[in-house]
Amino acid sequence: MPSKMVIAFGPFKDFIADGVRAGDTIHLSGAVSIDAEGKTVHAGDIVKQGQQAYRNIARVLEEFGAKMDNIVDETLFVTDMSAIMGSEEKMGAFFGMRAEAYGGNPQLTQSLIGVKELVMPDLMIEIKVVAHV
Amino acid sequence: MPSKMVIAFGPFKDFIADGVRAGDTIHLSGAVSIDAEGKTVHAGDIVKQGQQAYRNIARVLEEFGAKMDNIVDETLFVTDMSAIMGSEEKMGAFFGMRAEAYGGNPQLTQSLIGVKELVMPDLMIEIKVVAHV
Amino acid sequence: MPSKMVIAFGPFKDFIADGVRAGDTIHLSGAVSIDAEGKTVHAGDIVKQGQQAYRNIARVLEEFGAKMDNIVDETLFVTDMSAIMGSEEKMGAFFGMRAEAYGGNPQLTQSLIGVKELVMPDLMIEIKVVAHV
Repeated sequence: MPSKMVIAFGPFKDFIADGVRAGDTIHLSGAVSIDAEGKTVHAGDIVKQGQQAYRNIARVLEEFGAKMDNIVDETLFVTDMSAIMGSEEKMGAFFGMRAEAYGGNPQLTQSLIGVKELVMPDLMIEIKVVAHV
Repeated sequence: MPSKMVIAFGPFKDFIADGVRAGDTIHLSGAVSIDAEGKTVHAGDIVKQGQQAYRNIARVLEEFGAKMDNIVDETLFVTDMSAIMGSEEKMGAFFGMRAEAYGGNPQLTQSLIGVKELVMPDLMIEIKVVAHV
Repeated sequence: MPSKMVIAFGPFKDFIADGVRAGDTIHLSGAVSIDAEGKTVHAGDIVKQGQQAYRNIARVLEEFGAKMDNIVDETLFVTDMSAIMGSEEKMGAFFGMRAEAYGGNPQLTQSLIGVKELVMPDLMIEIKVVAHV
């Protein structure tokens, strides 16, 4: 049997784990702007949605004794690219929030992908990260 | 040279491997609802397409001496989110099939992403997994 | 603190690293058809865009003392699936270029996903790879 440490406490814990550690790698489920009951929050505001998603990520990492610093790769799936990249001001707002979430300029790789839909209609961003401990 | 164990037997084996083991990690190509000849099967039925994709995944893992249990992360790319999330009944049908494919409630992280197109027009779902041995 | 080797020299190095090595795994940021100044090149030509993206990938791997051979998994995000899969001729052109970029038939897993938008309007393809050393 492979050694795998599974953390599952979120609102969908019957279907998916919040995080799984395998070796020195921690996989996290795609994080979205939901509260502890699974209710979508901050409809219409991608900056606040991103902030909430990063908060949910930090909360999962904490369970593994890890921090935002441990993240090595992130994929951002967004339903409207212009909400982030549409103007200097929008970019500044989003990446400023992100720098704050990471406590500085993060040392990680990123892919930013515009998709058709996320799992619930009001979600504008889903953040999938991989961490290393 | 890195040590890498490559399994390639599928219908597109000239272009892509079905699975690659690197260290203790097994990467699999995105799995779709095709048969051994590469023909799309179960057009219009996302539950049966998912079932076929999981079957194809299990078949690749077997070549590495691994099982569905070894999967630590899955990303589901779907062309129509409502086909899974549109009603309680649809969710039940899809996640019921998935629990069966995994032989129980899987211990893994998940991202579920609605995309514009998959590699062939009739495909409704592509499942990309990472396993750990 | 986790051991992580970060390479960041590209035009967006203030926001994202080009590559991060964690253990024996190298994550790369999604590669697109941009030049060293971050300007999109080869608008309208997915084959040349893919070629440029692979060049950018090789350049990052080089910084880690790695090669295209080290890549174990690639995800291709494209804004128009028919530009690659629309005809035998298009498939031949794209996968021919890819074989050349890898110096032969690559030994890796692949997912090919049709998305709504990439980070800049003229981009037709983004290539996200994972390497193992």
